[in-house]
Amino acid sequence: MIAAKGYGALSKDSHIAPLEFNRRAIEPSDVLIDIMYCGICHSDIHTARGEWGPAIYPVVPGHEIVGKVIQVGSAVTRFKVGDIAGVGVFVDSCRTCSPCKKGLEQYCEGGMVPTYNGYYKDKVTPTYGGYSNCYVIDEQYTLRIPQQHNLAGVAPLLCAGITTYSPLKYAGVGKGHKVAVLGLGGLGHMAVKFAASFGAEVTMLSTSPSKEADAKRLGAHHFALSTDPAQMKALKGQFDFILNTVAAAHDINQFLDLLTLEGKMILVGIPPEHSAYSAAKLISKRRTIMGSMIGGIAETQEMLDYCAAHDIFSDIELISVHDINQAYERVIKSDVKYRFVIDMTTL
Amino acid sequence: MIAAKGYGALSKDSHIAPLEFNRRAIEPSDVLIDIMYCGICHSDIHTARGEWGPAIYPVVPGHEIVGKVIQVGSAVTRFKVGDIAGVGVFVDSCRTCSPCKKGLEQYCEGGMVPTYNGYYKDKVTPTYGGYSNCYVIDEQYTLRIPQQHNLAGVAPLLCAGITTYSPLKYAGVGKGHKVAVLGLGGLGHMAVKFAASFGAEVTMLSTSPSKEADAKRLGAHHFALSTDPAQMKALKGQFDFILNTVAAAHDINQFLDLLTLEGKMILVGIPPEHSAYSAAKLISKRRTIMGSMIGGIAETQEMLDYCAAHDIFSDIELISVHDINQAYERVIKSDVKYRFVIDMTTL
Repeated sequence: MIAAKGYGALSKDSHIAPLEFNRRAIEPSDVLIDIMYCGICHSDIHTARGEWGPAIYPVVPGHEIVGKVIQVGSAVTRFKVGDIAGVGVFVDSCRTCSPCKKGLEQYCEGGMVPTYNGYYKDKVTPTYGGYSNCYVIDEQYTLRIPQQHNLAGVAPLLCAGITTYSPLKYAGVGKGHKVAVLGLGGLGHMAVKFAASFGAEVTMLSTSPSKEADAKRLGAHHFALSTDPAQMKALKGQFDFILNTVAAAHDINQFLDLLTLEGKMILVGIPPEHSAYSAAKLISKRRTIMGSMIGGIAETQEMLDYCAAHDIFSDIELISVHDINQAYERVIKSDVKYRFVIDMTTL
Repeated sequence: MIAAKGYGALSKDSHIAPLEFNRRAIEPSDVLIDIMYCGICHSDIHTARGEWGPAIYPVVPGHEIVGKVIQVGSAVTRFKVGDIAGVGVFVDSCRTCSPCKKGLEQYCEGGMVPTYNGYYKDKVTPTYGGYSNCYVIDEQYTLRIPQQHNLAGVAPLLCAGITTYSPLKYAGVGKGHKVAVLGLGGLGHMAVKFAASFGAEVTMLSTSPSKEADAKRLGAHHFALSTDPAQMKALKGQFDFILNTVAAAHDINQFLDLLTLEGKMILVGIPPEHSAYSAAKLISKRRTIMGSMIGGIAETQEMLDYCAAHDIFSDIELISVHDINQAYERVIKSDVKYRFVIDMTTL
């Protein structure tokens, strides 16, 4: 076992506090990563607080991890000591089911092994996330980080980045498409960057007029206030795709109206309650609502390589490990531009 | 003008009763059809009773029409007197918008001209449907009927047939696919026939065990009772497509669970209230909910030709024009196998 230290929650009611724990020993196919940066994803908060069902305490959150390889197992071929490496939302999967064989490990039929708050395939050894000094991970589930600078801005690509990159690629978004992004947060700001980078004409739909300038700085060509009926009416039937990043309750029907014939609304956020749709709005224009969850390992690598080639990073606020609890409160109020990243040298 | 007679509703509260009315005069591109058969679609009832908003009374319903061409305009090239012809859900569209140019007239941006309860493009001349002795229609919106027998069983293909054929084709359903059909009514029985004919393995999902034998007679390979949790559990993640024909309120989430990774639920029925979906069920398996509405003229012709070549008809109960009101009551109770068709010689 490897003695590790980090920050986590001991129960659903506890703050995020320092703790020590054991990671599994290094197997021949594993790398040991010295963590440099870890992003704070809203799901970290939901999990630590038991809001998504009972968690496996202590919960050490964090699945947007960038660090340096400091040890490699005897069978490792893809990494060497000193390489910069990344860990995303999952660290293993069955490797034998049809989705795994297609590189869609996130949809593994046996269930992917989550980076934290889960168990390895032995079903007894818990996984602990990236609010920590180190991570042990099989090299097949480890990402190469080609970026040479701003590694803190790379960390959120491992979740917020791939979650928006994957559906835009899957849907074939590119030049000639009009794309709306619903919600400007951690996911939304990456969606704007990717959609614009892919050549689409991008509109930010938001409830808050104060976000217009920022949306345009991030790459949006247009901004529309979703609370203004006149602006919404003017956009009826305009968008080939709406990437819906909103995880709060909202009425999707006013946005379905904005889709073209055969337009697609892609969901990447999960509201707390079921959402109501008008079947007539789907049927009358052969429209689609689809969901998408993160991305597979190969596609995550493709995304990281794409970001390196196109100088795309997450916009972040770098914080000390001591400020995680305050950061959580600000995430809950959507008061972050656009992702908190923990500087792990402060541990 | 052409003096016509038929059956229709004078107000939302009236029964369907005999009436006389005028059809528009024959233009050079029109054909005049002597109606032989007209199907009864549930939407006839909704419209006649004003349940879908104020109707244009008198309403002469009927948009599943088969008859004989008895007169052609001077510019008509595709039909001659004596031909058997069909009329579906719409009789004109703008012909210039992008959907019209793609043969997707049902999604015309200017709005298709409905076969009844609408206005022609002059916006003043009302359209009257097929519960009548004749129909005047532009040859471009008239279907050729290749079938040589059972023309009564052809009539419902013009709505129930194309409404299920089109989405199955659009989705690419064929050999190797597992398809579930939700609801065994006018639409559902055609969906089973088409999906089986396209080579898919077809399961009928129904709330009523009494429908099993009939579902299998129609071509379903399997039957499952949607009210039985054990049967539903056994089908989790099994279907590539679910064609959802249900127009009554129902919980779609138990059926989303039955879809494979990237499985698609296709809606062709419009429940009276909005439906609620679990975003998690869509996101966790990259699933889709999509809608589809009837089909374009070219595809409707393709469907009719396909049905003629493969001996596919609607299962019908032939009635006299005097029995329309009783038929309506039975349609409302889903007590019909599987479409009433009016024998217009009884007019």
